[in-house]
Amino acid sequence: MAQRSLRDALLGAAAAEFHEKGYSATGVAAIAGRAGAPKGSFYNHFPSKDALGVLVVEQYARTRGTEILLDPGSEPLDALQKHFDHLRADLAQHDYALGCLLGNFAAEVARSGTQVDTAVRDSLTVWLGALAIPVRRLADQGELPAGADPDEVARALGSAWEGAALLAKATGNAQPIDDFFAVTFPRTLGLAR
Amino acid sequence: MAQRSLRDALLGAAAAEFHEKGYSATGVAAIAGRAGAPKGSFYNHFPSKDALGVLVVEQYARTRGTEILLDPGSEPLDALQKHFDHLRADLAQHDYALGCLLGNFAAEVARSGTQVDTAVRDSLTVWLGALAIPVRRLADQGELPAGADPDEVARALGSAWEGAALLAKATGNAQPIDDFFAVTFPRTLGLAR
Repeated sequence: MAQRSLRDALLGAAAAEFHEKGYSATGVAAIAGRAGAPKGSFYNHFPSKDALGVLVVEQYARTRGTEILLDPGSEPLDALQKHFDHLRADLAQHDYALGCLLGNFAAEVARSGTQVDTAVRDSLTVWLGALAIPVRRLADQGELPAGADPDEVARALGSAWEGAALLAKATGNAQPIDDFFAVTFPRTLGLAR
Repeated sequence: MAQRSLRDALLGAAAAEFHEKGYSATGVAAIAGRAGAPKGSFYNHFPSKDALGVLVVEQYARTRGTEILLDPGSEPLDALQKHFDHLRADLAQHDYALGCLLGNFAAEVARSGTQVDTAVRDSLTVWLGALAIPVRRLADQGELPAGADPDEVARALGSAWEGAALLAKATGNAQPIDDFFAVTFPRTLGLAR
């Protein structure tokens, strides 16, 4: 296998193993094995599991549809709905069994002082910041409840989403995600009765 | 050390290690070491790390103030507020750095087919069921928004709480918990604008 494609294979294998089994439970040997590569080849491509974890987090973060939130031509409420629909479709691909990689990693590596810990925190912070953009536009249009702080609302929505993804994974069904769309999303934004 | 107190020491050490470092990253040797016990003594008391994980989950679940939700003499809204205040105080004890043990474990062991996976799922299900009790009483008193399904509302509150605990752990501050109390809790229950 060419060097470049071996590196990509290792990265893809790591993303899948980390998502399925978690960060701590996944060793370099399992990643190399899944990629069909000799274990020794791992360190030709990545200095450490920690460094590879950072790449996996960055790659995952690029698939979360953050650009939907940033589109100035969209209606802000549509953008929020489309963004969370995108995240739901991603979870549904794995029958809700794997949860959000960022949330899973956060549960494992937060405060560990590793590079992957920093990458997870940064990705979550960027995402919460992006969520605030359409929420602020809603506020500017007078479509948030009076007195609501758009940044607070955006952060509350984001953390409720992470909880729903986690509970869906834990309980093995989509109900927590359905509850998010039926209750948390509309009520947090002041849309429903 | 007497057999009984050695067992308790191992259980306490496991609870602390699991909460601080996660389930996968904690080995039997680290648990024994923290308890000041020889590694070999572990298997005199517990058949496996999985079995010990179940005991830790059950012990943790008993500290979550579920009884506050079940008190028929309380005002249901007070009960909900007191329950989440109790959970907040518990997170604050560790400066929000450790998150909820059940949520952390769920992120790691869900769908692993282990006993600890089942114990986590059962504990979360019991908790969500207990949350529904005061929410149904609110509905019976006409204090939920018209058309709101109390079970859906209770589950949405519970999963939003888990997300807030996770994000607090990930970002290293209490803001997600503050957001829960400022936004998600009142709005999900239809209390505030």
